[in-house]
Amino acid sequence: MTRLLVASRNAKKLAEMRRILAGAGVEVVGLDEVPPFPEAPETGATFEDNAVAKARDAAAETGLPAVADDSGLAVDALNGMPGVFSARWAGRTRSDEANLRLVLEQVADVPDERLTASFVCASALVLPDSTEIIVRGEWPGRLVREPRGGNGFGYDPIFVPEGETRTSAELTSAEKDAISHRGRALQLLLPHLRTLSRP
Amino acid sequence: MTRLLVASRNAKKLAEMRRILAGAGVEVVGLDEVPPFPEAPETGATFEDNAVAKARDAAAETGLPAVADDSGLAVDALNGMPGVFSARWAGRTRSDEANLRLVLEQVADVPDERLTASFVCASALVLPDSTEIIVRGEWPGRLVREPRGGNGFGYDPIFVPEGETRTSAELTSAEKDAISHRGRALQLLLPHLRTLSRP
Repeated sequence: MTRLLVASRNAKKLAEMRRILAGAGVEVVGLDEVPPFPEAPETGATFEDNAVAKARDAAAETGLPAVADDSGLAVDALNGMPGVFSARWAGRTRSDEANLRLVLEQVADVPDERLTASFVCASALVLPDSTEIIVRGEWPGRLVREPRGGNGFGYDPIFVPEGETRTSAELTSAEKDAISHRGRALQLLLPHLRTLSRP
Repeated sequence: MTRLLVASRNAKKLAEMRRILAGAGVEVVGLDEVPPFPEAPETGATFEDNAVAKARDAAAETGLPAVADDSGLAVDALNGMPGVFSARWAGRTRSDEANLRLVLEQVADVPDERLTASFVCASALVLPDSTEIIVRGEWPGRLVREPRGGNGFGYDPIFVPEGETRTSAELTSAEKDAISHRGRALQLLLPHLRTLSRP
């Protein structure tokens, strides 16, 4: 089976991607399963910039087809932030809990009707022949002021997807994968990934 | 001399406004110098919304002509944030030091050439006859990664105005007032304030 490098060390993100890509005919390996190489910092202004830079690096360093994603929460009242800074919004501690607590404090005085937000995921696939495919998945919803639910990660406990009353941390993995920003982005990559496993 | 209520309890902001309005022919009084009234939270989406709401409230509650400003730092790499959330960017502690440290951590990986920012001040004057005048002052510059200087307040220690090498916390009060966002906004209000002191 063709190996596909997913340029991440986030165990929860890797598990999510393994589930979503289960039918793609590839063996997903994470960064901890390949020889280490120097990784560039994420300095892009957009999710797409960061995703393609990471995938390019990973493919060039390993010779494997590589997927990278960059994703985050875009809060309308914060002009689309935390955005590309989602993982370190509260500073270098990179704690999910600190990040979401800070967002809730920042929007404490914002009226409920303006608490709209979207999860965004840009995903880039770079093939050994240098082909690059970049896709984006978005998941619209709104914020709640009290975290709820133990599934997922990141800002899932404060995000209620459109058409739901549960937060994305209260959805099952299968429910989340079917409609999430990352699920949508990877669905768009699937046809390209299937070509990898063909002779 | 006509009394002008400045709808603020921030001693440093009041001092700055008293200096800038010294020649306007009005006696500046702060919120702590008038009988207390219930103050609405700042829930506007823009500096202008917040400034005019505060000035309207203050004029209606006291019968005095009232000026209010809402101001903040707009960091381009943060899509214009902290913006209207500048005073509580790091959460409810409302500490200048915590706020500017958080901004610096958030932009830690942003290349220097993208560290552009502006101070923005919307100022609203509401007269007893319900006339409303709303103005905006902007002060473009860039961020530095290490705070410098002991003058000013807020984000002054990490902001270097265009054409300067010093941070705005290293400028003298007079230098700052002449070119700052608040100075520019109040200059635009001066002609209207002078009409108050005329018979």
